[in-house]
Amino acid sequence: MSLLVVGSIALDSVETPHGIVQDALGGSATYFSYAASYFTPVRLVGVVGEDFPPEHRKTLEGRKIDASGLMVEKGGKTFRWRGKYQGDMNTAETLEVHLNVLGTFDPDLSPAFAETPFVFLANGSPSMQRKVLSQCQARKLAVADTMNFWIETQHDELLALLKDVDGLVLNDGEARLLTGEVNLVKAGEAVLDLGPRFVLIKKGEHGAMFLSRDEAFVMPAFPLAEVVDPTGAGDSFAGGFMGYLAAARQTDPASLKKAMAYGTVVASFNVEDFSLRRFLRTDRAEIDKRLEAYRTMMSF
Amino acid sequence: MSLLVVGSIALDSVETPHGIVQDALGGSATYFSYAASYFTPVRLVGVVGEDFPPEHRKTLEGRKIDASGLMVEKGGKTFRWRGKYQGDMNTAETLEVHLNVLGTFDPDLSPAFAETPFVFLANGSPSMQRKVLSQCQARKLAVADTMNFWIETQHDELLALLKDVDGLVLNDGEARLLTGEVNLVKAGEAVLDLGPRFVLIKKGEHGAMFLSRDEAFVMPAFPLAEVVDPTGAGDSFAGGFMGYLAAARQTDPASLKKAMAYGTVVASFNVEDFSLRRFLRTDRAEIDKRLEAYRTMMSF
Repeated sequence: MSLLVVGSIALDSVETPHGIVQDALGGSATYFSYAASYFTPVRLVGVVGEDFPPEHRKTLEGRKIDASGLMVEKGGKTFRWRGKYQGDMNTAETLEVHLNVLGTFDPDLSPAFAETPFVFLANGSPSMQRKVLSQCQARKLAVADTMNFWIETQHDELLALLKDVDGLVLNDGEARLLTGEVNLVKAGEAVLDLGPRFVLIKKGEHGAMFLSRDEAFVMPAFPLAEVVDPTGAGDSFAGGFMGYLAAARQTDPASLKKAMAYGTVVASFNVEDFSLRRFLRTDRAEIDKRLEAYRTMMSF
Repeated sequence: MSLLVVGSIALDSVETPHGIVQDALGGSATYFSYAASYFTPVRLVGVVGEDFPPEHRKTLEGRKIDASGLMVEKGGKTFRWRGKYQGDMNTAETLEVHLNVLGTFDPDLSPAFAETPFVFLANGSPSMQRKVLSQCQARKLAVADTMNFWIETQHDELLALLKDVDGLVLNDGEARLLTGEVNLVKAGEAVLDLGPRFVLIKKGEHGAMFLSRDEAFVMPAFPLAEVVDPTGAGDSFAGGFMGYLAAARQTDPASLKKAMAYGTVVASFNVEDFSLRRFLRTDRAEIDKRLEAYRTMMSF
């Protein structure tokens, strides 16, 4: 089944101990789409400015990604982020953010896109996420991401959104901020009290935890000797997770657990190079091979 | 097969958000022995002072622990540690340390103990650990733990020890300090270069990683909604790990992996209460039940 993602398209400038890239293709919807495209057709909705390089558009239109929902705002500039990773590279230091066209992003879905059964609302303003969600009348599974900024500035809108989504994806710090609970199991349970039937808490290099009322899954990250650039790891994780579910047309506990494993493995490819570079030189066969290695690492 | 542990016996005073205990039974050899005793007979070697409470000795002599190697130093005082955990409780703040009789701990093994096939050298001075190891002529598997203090103050002795042990257990920060590598896979590989055929890197609430030349295992911690006191988690992990191996009489990769899972689960019991309290009210059946729940959480 097809999968819709609404989120950011960015020009990222990133510095890590392994190098520097300038104006590289990034953004939550970009990483999500590529990660999901190994499993299922993806419908991407986002906005860029007139400065968006044609080669980046070509990259987005590659694979099984329908980029007909990629709007170009006349006279506008593409969202830009500049950041730096140091030391253990677990958190980015943001050096510059220019929202540009993303600041007024308020998409209307095409009738075809509005019929998509699997929906991912990548990190964005909860009010925008809610408007998009209200257009998705045929949704079978809707999952949202969020971040500290929205938890702090659009708290009520976010709470309203959480009553309407099936799942929430967020990182450990965000889960703690949203719920006031330090312990992650308690934080996850508190998220469930807000509405979603499941929550996926991402812990960066330490893996992820899935909680629903009846299930708890925990998985470590796939161990890598070289992390080149962690940018987009969380969105790649979500893309692998949702992509697998959409392809399987299932949302039962066993499928959710396998989806989590795929999300982990797909994210591990993403961080092995800057921007989409590693994704551009992998395929489903290599992903499946690493999934088997991952399974072996922790099955006893 | 029986299992020997040489390490500290302590009177711990611990404060966490869940309460306070004073002069509670603690120490690396204590936690290790109890954790291992669910799997195999344990031979404990340690030293205490004349102030060591008789009820603590009784606790140590409980279960399948042979405490005939527990020396009482005349006129001496037992090793004491006072610490505090706050926030995410990942690291203890040490408020007081009194080495007391531990400062001159230099054990001679009885002939029977020297014949033990499975040996664990809990955290202690590498020179003492080496002297003990040299007495273990019948060893089948010898594993050591260490800490920042010894890495910094007895570096050469530690390097000499590493050439003679089969495995090293240490936490992530210690692995980074010992090797100078930030990435944990690289740090683990650098430890292997120093001699051991495997290394187990503990990551607290984030689980653990096992590395040998041919194998990499990764496991998350067992998720708990309430961590009451993390003291002894690492030693309990090592105790479950070594205890399972000694009982299985195996050190092949599959056994090492299952041992790691048992170590994780046994440690999860330990942190659910202060001192040995949770251990004192669990049994192998409950441990096995949680092991199955743990397996379900990550098998896909």
